[in-house]
Amino acid sequence: MPHSTSAPPLGVGMVGYAFMGAAHSQGWRTVARAFDLPLTPVLAAVCGRDPAAVSQAADRLGWAAAETDWRALIARDDVSLVDICTPGDSHADIAIAALEAGKHVLCEKPLANTVAEAEAMAQAARAAAERGQLAMVGFNYRRVPALALARRLIAEGRVGTLRHVRVSYLQDWGEDPALPLVWRLRKDKAGSGALGDLGAHIVDLAQYLSGELLTGVSAQTETFVKERALPGGKAGQTGEVTVDDAAVFTGRLASGALTSFEVSRLAAGRKNQLRIELNGAAGSVAFDLERLNELEFHDHTLPASEGGFRRILATEADHPYLEGWWPPGHGLGYEHTFTHQARDLVLAIASGTQPEPTFDDGLQVQRVLAAIEESAQKNAVFTPVPAPE
Amino acid sequence: MPHSTSAPPLGVGMVGYAFMGAAHSQGWRTVARAFDLPLTPVLAAVCGRDPAAVSQAADRLGWAAAETDWRALIARDDVSLVDICTPGDSHADIAIAALEAGKHVLCEKPLANTVAEAEAMAQAARAAAERGQLAMVGFNYRRVPALALARRLIAEGRVGTLRHVRVSYLQDWGEDPALPLVWRLRKDKAGSGALGDLGAHIVDLAQYLSGELLTGVSAQTETFVKERALPGGKAGQTGEVTVDDAAVFTGRLASGALTSFEVSRLAAGRKNQLRIELNGAAGSVAFDLERLNELEFHDHTLPASEGGFRRILATEADHPYLEGWWPPGHGLGYEHTFTHQARDLVLAIASGTQPEPTFDDGLQVQRVLAAIEESAQKNAVFTPVPAPE
Amino acid sequence: MPHSTSAPPLGVGMVGYAFMGAAHSQGWRTVARAFDLPLTPVLAAVCGRDPAAVSQAADRLGWAAAETDWRALIARDDVSLVDICTPGDSHADIAIAALEAGKHVLCEKPLANTVAEAEAMAQAARAAAERGQLAMVGFNYRRVPALALARRLIAEGRVGTLRHVRVSYLQDWGEDPALPLVWRLRKDKAGSGALGDLGAHIVDLAQYLSGELLTGVSAQTETFVKERALPGGKAGQTGEVTVDDAAVFTGRLASGALTSFEVSRLAAGRKNQLRIELNGAAGSVAFDLERLNELEFHDHTLPASEGGFRRILATEADHPYLEGWWPPGHGLGYEHTFTHQARDLVLAIASGTQPEPTFDDGLQVQRVLAAIEESAQKNAVFTPVPAPE
Amino acid sequence: MPHSTSAPPLGVGMVGYAFMGAAHSQGWRTVARAFDLPLTPVLAAVCGRDPAAVSQAADRLGWAAAETDWRALIARDDVSLVDICTPGDSHADIAIAALEAGKHVLCEKPLANTVAEAEAMAQAARAAAERGQLAMVGFNYRRVPALALARRLIAEGRVGTLRHVRVSYLQDWGEDPALPLVWRLRKDKAGSGALGDLGAHIVDLAQYLSGELLTGVSAQTETFVKERALPGGKAGQTGEVTVDDAAVFTGRLASGALTSFEVSRLAAGRKNQLRIELNGAAGSVAFDLERLNELEFHDHTLPASEGGFRRILATEADHPYLEGWWPPGHGLGYEHTFTHQARDLVLAIASGTQPEPTFDDGLQVQRVLAAIEESAQKNAVFTPVPAPE
Repeated sequence: MPHSTSAPPLGVGMVGYAFMGAAHSQGWRTVARAFDLPLTPVLAAVCGRDPAAVSQAADRLGWAAAETDWRALIARDDVSLVDICTPGDSHADIAIAALEAGKHVLCEKPLANTVAEAEAMAQAARAAAERGQLAMVGFNYRRVPALALARRLIAEGRVGTLRHVRVSYLQDWGEDPALPLVWRLRKDKAGSGALGDLGAHIVDLAQYLSGELLTGVSAQTETFVKERALPGGKAGQTGEVTVDDAAVFTGRLASGALTSFEVSRLAAGRKNQLRIELNGAAGSVAFDLERLNELEFHDHTLPASEGGFRRILATEADHPYLEGWWPPGHGLGYEHTFTHQARDLVLAIASGTQPEPTFDDGLQVQRVLAAIEESAQKNAVFTPVPAPE
Repeated sequence: MPHSTSAPPLGVGMVGYAFMGAAHSQGWRTVARAFDLPLTPVLAAVCGRDPAAVSQAADRLGWAAAETDWRALIARDDVSLVDICTPGDSHADIAIAALEAGKHVLCEKPLANTVAEAEAMAQAARAAAERGQLAMVGFNYRRVPALALARRLIAEGRVGTLRHVRVSYLQDWGEDPALPLVWRLRKDKAGSGALGDLGAHIVDLAQYLSGELLTGVSAQTETFVKERALPGGKAGQTGEVTVDDAAVFTGRLASGALTSFEVSRLAAGRKNQLRIELNGAAGSVAFDLERLNELEFHDHTLPASEGGFRRILATEADHPYLEGWWPPGHGLGYEHTFTHQARDLVLAIASGTQPEPTFDDGLQVQRVLAAIEESAQKNAVFTPVPAPE
Repeated sequence: MPHSTSAPPLGVGMVGYAFMGAAHSQGWRTVARAFDLPLTPVLAAVCGRDPAAVSQAADRLGWAAAETDWRALIARDDVSLVDICTPGDSHADIAIAALEAGKHVLCEKPLANTVAEAEAMAQAARAAAERGQLAMVGFNYRRVPALALARRLIAEGRVGTLRHVRVSYLQDWGEDPALPLVWRLRKDKAGSGALGDLGAHIVDLAQYLSGELLTGVSAQTETFVKERALPGGKAGQTGEVTVDDAAVFTGRLASGALTSFEVSRLAAGRKNQLRIELNGAAGSVAFDLERLNELEFHDHTLPASEGGFRRILATEADHPYLEGWWPPGHGLGYEHTFTHQARDLVLAIASGTQPEPTFDDGLQVQRVLAAIEESAQKNAVFTPVPAPE
Repeated sequence: MPHSTSAPPLGVGMVGYAFMGAAHSQGWRTVARAFDLPLTPVLAAVCGRDPAAVSQAADRLGWAAAETDWRALIARDDVSLVDICTPGDSHADIAIAALEAGKHVLCEKPLANTVAEAEAMAQAARAAAERGQLAMVGFNYRRVPALALARRLIAEGRVGTLRHVRVSYLQDWGEDPALPLVWRLRKDKAGSGALGDLGAHIVDLAQYLSGELLTGVSAQTETFVKERALPGGKAGQTGEVTVDDAAVFTGRLASGALTSFEVSRLAAGRKNQLRIELNGAAGSVAFDLERLNELEFHDHTLPASEGGFRRILATEADHPYLEGWWPPGHGLGYEHTFTHQARDLVLAIASGTQPEPTFDDGLQVQRVLAAIEESAQKNAVFTPVPAPE
């Protein structure tokens, strides 16, 4: 076993330090303690616009330096990898500049606010890859061990010819009438609402787990609460919510499998419930993010009298990512997905291989989101998703 | 407490004696033993085309006589109520004839195979009602105590302004490659596949529980297994499956609430899983038919620190239908829905009030099913459901 | 398939018509409708002390005649089988008289209020068996399909060398301070409290499922609420509760497996929760009566990465008792255990074979209960259970 | 909000670096990143006997220095707090020496291998407390947010007069026949088997949650697998397992509430399943460590028709410890208990208040374990637990 932390350093610079920044920091800070890595991530610098706040965040989250201009962060010699944790409207600018400056890039999802931005980013990533710079998009749920196990079972044929994928991702914070008009409710900052925030995750997961792409979608969206108090505004001052609160959509995978999707921020009692189930001729898998250490697997090749969904605790030593953690039954949490993401990216950089999901994968998800919005505007008519070039 | 079985008799004649006939028989046989009723159902006669088989069924299921012609059954003096348990292609003929002959009618769902048939039936029912004959359609799941309790909570405002209804009804018997081309797989007998069989149930439930009607739908359907062995055919002889195996559809309720639906006969490991969840501004309810004695209820008016879905065992004495049964925690089964259906119909007949769901309700579900099929043929475009007259 | 109801009649006479009487009636009324039987049970007569009440019960529950003296019931020519549903203090008298009169006997559990009574009953049953009369004790939970399936798996070696049996049976009706001093709370009528009522069930189940007998026990019991209002008494008048509210005990099976047991009537929120789990070297089974259609099975011979408790819906056609019922996933209820019990007893009578559980089995459970009470009085010291002769 | 990491340092020295050492390291490393603390833990030095291994562990786990003699670690100026993660046979020596050297001490559970050792440790802790050095024992499960929430609800009276506490802690790694005779299976190193390892946790939890002490116990223990291969021995060479594999015991709390306990390392399919339930006159709580973000709470003061166990996701901002973590529904894992433990200890040290659980609490648990072993040797007779002085 090589000594992980005597491995050469990999300088990381992070832009943004809110929820996602805190979660990514925990990943970078922890990854070399849990896994044997050929490179040791170093938390070189964090960037934000407010000097006092970013300095405080650097101190709190463990970053050696603070920057207030992301261009300065990118320019630092001690930064080899730029980790983008800002709202979607700045992803393209930062990612493209970082790649052009010869840095590796990890970009939070959704990749961008528009397909055009995502196309430019994907093109920049392809060009950078030829120069040895690697780009990855942060669909962290691929790194939940139970979902990585699901992918493994499906890749091994344990689900067989696919019939159905059904996914929902439900939260309820939007049901609070006192919630002000935060950036996630503004189209100019967030691009879309539940669709980009939650829908991007489940579109990616459905495609990743099935190993197939969506060929088209039919969608409806809704904004249930149309006005919210302006943050910092006077009493009674409100602004328009310009993104969706919820969406329902159906689709087709390349094999013809039927898919159904739902996202909402107004599903009372569902805090962060991402449920996904795939049914095939040989078996089924089911998962619930509120119980993230469990995968349910039904082996349809057993006699019916013995069949049934079995609850596999994805905490065995030979389950994905578990070599770094605790004995069986000692569960992991949400934040571990970021540690696993950091692990996979570091391994890819060290070996010079392309990490997944790629910016092209992120672009393809963006095209699905665009097709969803187009369908929603066209009376839910089935709207094809352009195939990747 | 009046003596239920010394109450005057109500002669019942049943057409069909397969799965539904056996379940209805259990309901008629049991209802006066569990509930105080002003009329006592008498199992007068059962009808089927094969003389030996129907005679055996009469003996086995407890019917006093057997008939081989449904017109003869209707004509019997000892039959006041005709209970129709045949495939959908004969519902209209039998129901209309029975109503015109002055009999009450209970008709299995879906009401008919086409909207035109359903319209004729609903018109016959309206005419018969004026003469005192009552008609009811057998959406038996309304009589699951936990779902009747859900309706009660919703009617009391415990869910509040509705945001979402999501329902799926999944089975897996279609995944068996050896399954022959039974009547349920033929459009001429069954009208449609999973849609009419399972979809009718969940469309009715979504509307019943919400207290709202669907204004339109967007749908995709699929027949995964397109050829099946012919029953009684030579080895290798197959016929075309002419109905859907599965459908996914989204819709809107009158209030604007978003709905999502899925039905399938090829969802490996799901035997008879009808799941329904409604989210509103004040709370949520969730239910799973595979655990039919349980209702999950989230009260969103509680502080978040105390909130959460609570598992109410719908077996308390003051829960719907429980006055007839066992102490708390002693669960009921699938078949009890038919006993409860019988109870409600007998009470309606005795008091001369219209039982629900009416044939008009059944017609409206039929229109939703037709809109689903139309949408599926038109690239999933959102297709309005005509409002009831 | 033979015609079940054209089979010769088997006249049944039932003593007692409260909760258990109603449940048994449902069993007798239904069994020949669901199963092919060589004899058809006929509900000949029911017996109770209050003439008006028993007459009403006969009418309601479907018994052809009513008797007010159990000796008269036994003497009836049309009664071949006496079904005893009274409190425990009268079991011995009725059962022994019935057996001596040449009748078959089904006796509710616990078999008796004392070991001495149970011994007399078992002796009477042995003597009667030689004359062709059969006796059975009503541990109905053996006839829950999921538990019968558990027994089948264990008998096939799927659990292997046994390590643990843990069982609890929890209710909460005793937590109601307004509950009066009903017969179940009086030692003279009920023999014991939760111990005889709930403990008898779980002692029988632990032994039945494991296929082993308890060799000894260590116990503590408690009466939490020591005074209750007298039924029909004046306001404020109370009487002493003379039975246990709850008991915890541990034991050993013949193989050395460790067992733990708990019964309570004051476990708030647990309505009728009988949980049982058996762990062995090859696998485990787990069951919860509040979800009685499900058996959880863990196959420990699978690789750990695929292991986990699988939820088998015990509703497949080849599961125990399911040949009489509905398609997969259409669940049964509590009352079906009585139908299955009736089925097994009828089959045994028709074939002249001894049904199980026998009165000797009931006696052995009684000895375990006596050892529990003795241990509880002796500071929980491990108290041997006498081996059956 | 003060700057946590600009707070003065608190030098930590850790002895032992296996499973517990890795988990504690993660706690020390993370705590100041998640919580605002008046002191910042610094990972000063780690200690182990093998120079190469401890040096590697220091590097991997993030400790600034390595020591091979725990006396040297204690003597270091940069170590103010000694964290003991060794097997139980060395706890007393290290803890007492550290306290006498003027260091704060955190000691893994069980506190010691014998009551005598624990008494000496508790006395040393009392003496040290007068000098300002604080000692705490590592019952980390008190710091699972859902269990801390359970304690809060119970302290607020939401469970009311207590009737029952039932707890089981089940694992299955002992079922592996290839498992060698590791230190946890040797009495000289581990003191006891499942009892000290798992039983210590559940005895502490039962007392902590109830707020009451056990007054006596009745117990049985068992070693199912009596011989195991010697680690590093020749093929076929085995040694005796000198500790228990499993134990069942019952007890009484001061209020008279009945308790039942079970621990096992041979419960096939249960990986790390600690289940605890408390029933009282006003309500109940239930918890399962395999779903550690959930607390089930039944409010028995609600009408029965609305009652039921509700699943509270213990991830709300006002739930215990959640101020440091993620939005609602983003679950935590096993390791977070060590971060929370570190938080509470740092806060206690900074404010000079006694942290809990104290060494006296650890001693009392040790006395319970001793009473369990004594009872098991004396035919399970109820054996009093000496009251704390």
